[in-house]
Amino acid sequence: MPPHSEALRQSAVHDMHRPALTDAARPATIEIPAINERGETVPTAIAGEHPLTVYLDKRELVTLMTLGGAPEALVIGYLRNQRLLPSIEDILSVQVDWDVNAAAVTTRAGVADLDARMATKTVTTGCGQGTVFGDLMDDIERIRLPEDARLTESTLYAMLDVVRKHETIYKQAGAVHGCALFRGDELLYFVEDVGRHNAVDAIAGHMWLDGVEGGDKIFYTTGRLTSEMVIKAAQMGIPFLVSRSGLTKMGYDIAQQVGITMIGRSQGRHYLLLTGMQRFVRDGEGA
Amino acid sequence: MPPHSEALRQSAVHDMHRPALTDAARPATIEIPAINERGETVPTAIAGEHPLTVYLDKRELVTLMTLGGAPEALVIGYLRNQRLLPSIEDILSVQVDWDVNAAAVTTRAGVADLDARMATKTVTTGCGQGTVFGDLMDDIERIRLPEDARLTESTLYAMLDVVRKHETIYKQAGAVHGCALFRGDELLYFVEDVGRHNAVDAIAGHMWLDGVEGGDKIFYTTGRLTSEMVIKAAQMGIPFLVSRSGLTKMGYDIAQQVGITMIGRSQGRHYLLLTGMQRFVRDGEGA
Repeated sequence: MPPHSEALRQSAVHDMHRPALTDAARPATIEIPAINERGETVPTAIAGEHPLTVYLDKRELVTLMTLGGAPEALVIGYLRNQRLLPSIEDILSVQVDWDVNAAAVTTRAGVADLDARMATKTVTTGCGQGTVFGDLMDDIERIRLPEDARLTESTLYAMLDVVRKHETIYKQAGAVHGCALFRGDELLYFVEDVGRHNAVDAIAGHMWLDGVEGGDKIFYTTGRLTSEMVIKAAQMGIPFLVSRSGLTKMGYDIAQQVGITMIGRSQGRHYLLLTGMQRFVRDGEGA
Repeated sequence: MPPHSEALRQSAVHDMHRPALTDAARPATIEIPAINERGETVPTAIAGEHPLTVYLDKRELVTLMTLGGAPEALVIGYLRNQRLLPSIEDILSVQVDWDVNAAAVTTRAGVADLDARMATKTVTTGCGQGTVFGDLMDDIERIRLPEDARLTESTLYAMLDVVRKHETIYKQAGAVHGCALFRGDELLYFVEDVGRHNAVDAIAGHMWLDGVEGGDKIFYTTGRLTSEMVIKAAQMGIPFLVSRSGLTKMGYDIAQQVGITMIGRSQGRHYLLLTGMQRFVRDGEGA
């Protein structure tokens, strides 16, 4: 999804550095013939899934399996969330070429201690991306999320309505995860991908590209509230993490540690407020 | 879940080598206080999630995030599905110690070209485990699944009923994936874990430990039919892969390539027959 006008306005204010990018989105779904329990052949839409090998200054880094809807933002967000590059300024260009399933990233000055960073590997629950988890845990000690941010119940419900209307690929094909970034009930980005953390990373990439800060935003995911999901939202400085799904124990522990406001099982007019309850305002209570 | 008597009988016949194992299962769920949309505090069960760092002959290999229900089988199945060890005979012992979140694996002769194997990394959709994907793709060329195996619609329905009754942790806490191995409608193993591929790997581990072959079995997963899920089932020699969920394009492509019989969206009395239709017998059609 292209950056929302709000995001564009912010980036204009920031007078952002913007890397040279391709615009290599893939079609989201294809149709296959399946046979149902009545013996009928039913054309069935399935989500696209393509390997995308990331080359960082000509060095092979990782291969991501992706729907391919926002490959440039995905690669940038992957580098951001893996904390391989400190800022968007360090990226000169991202060139995605589906003929060879490759994304070539050129940086301004390379990546310090890349070998060391790639040495450790933790398979995180749900969608591991070989995150250097130790580093992540060190870093979250330093994360400070705005205490005065507030989310009202009515805004939450309005958000859930917006998400429901946007899940195009999920409705067609299923087997994808969706993530969204909101300011209040205003949708800034919505990304679906076959890998949940791809969707998170793509939004992180869009935010970097458009100079969008997290402090007054709400992050929504259809996926489970795992440790990696909580850490990524907190790293982006986002005080609110909302999910349709449940949570894992490490997701819960880390959410308490970073003081994020986490809401699970959010659908229709139902939700479970899990952590950071001081930032949530039930309707009728007032801020 | 302990090996089923059928599996044990087989292993007795095989006169199996069995590594020295700890029996270090963790409690599956813990309870946290959440607040629902009516402002009520509701005790909410969440799935346990623990890092387990695997040391292969004292070398750190990977850290898995796991529910911890079958850690020894998980580690053995991980080594099997990553194809780091050719047979269970190569494993002398697996010692899991939750005080240090570590699993120490001692092998008979070490692992050939371990550095090379660990060098490439592909993040597979859903739950990447840093699979050496290139190798996997080479190997599937050689996979031959039994053509004469059959699954009837009534057996499928009976399986789905058995699974529904077994999803204890999912029902309590959600946020887990379940996998099961069947012979006909006889359940041999059922494993739930916070990471979907952990559940697959744990079943692969149980099969190795008990000398259970895949050729006449049916593999069930609650998770999506991704490329990695299809490849792992095919590597275990299992001709039938059944899921409650949908599929991804690479899962579909690889299922066609290996000629596995894949059935998605299986719940109650509904299913979608996706590939390998010649092995499926609709009720009334006869084998």
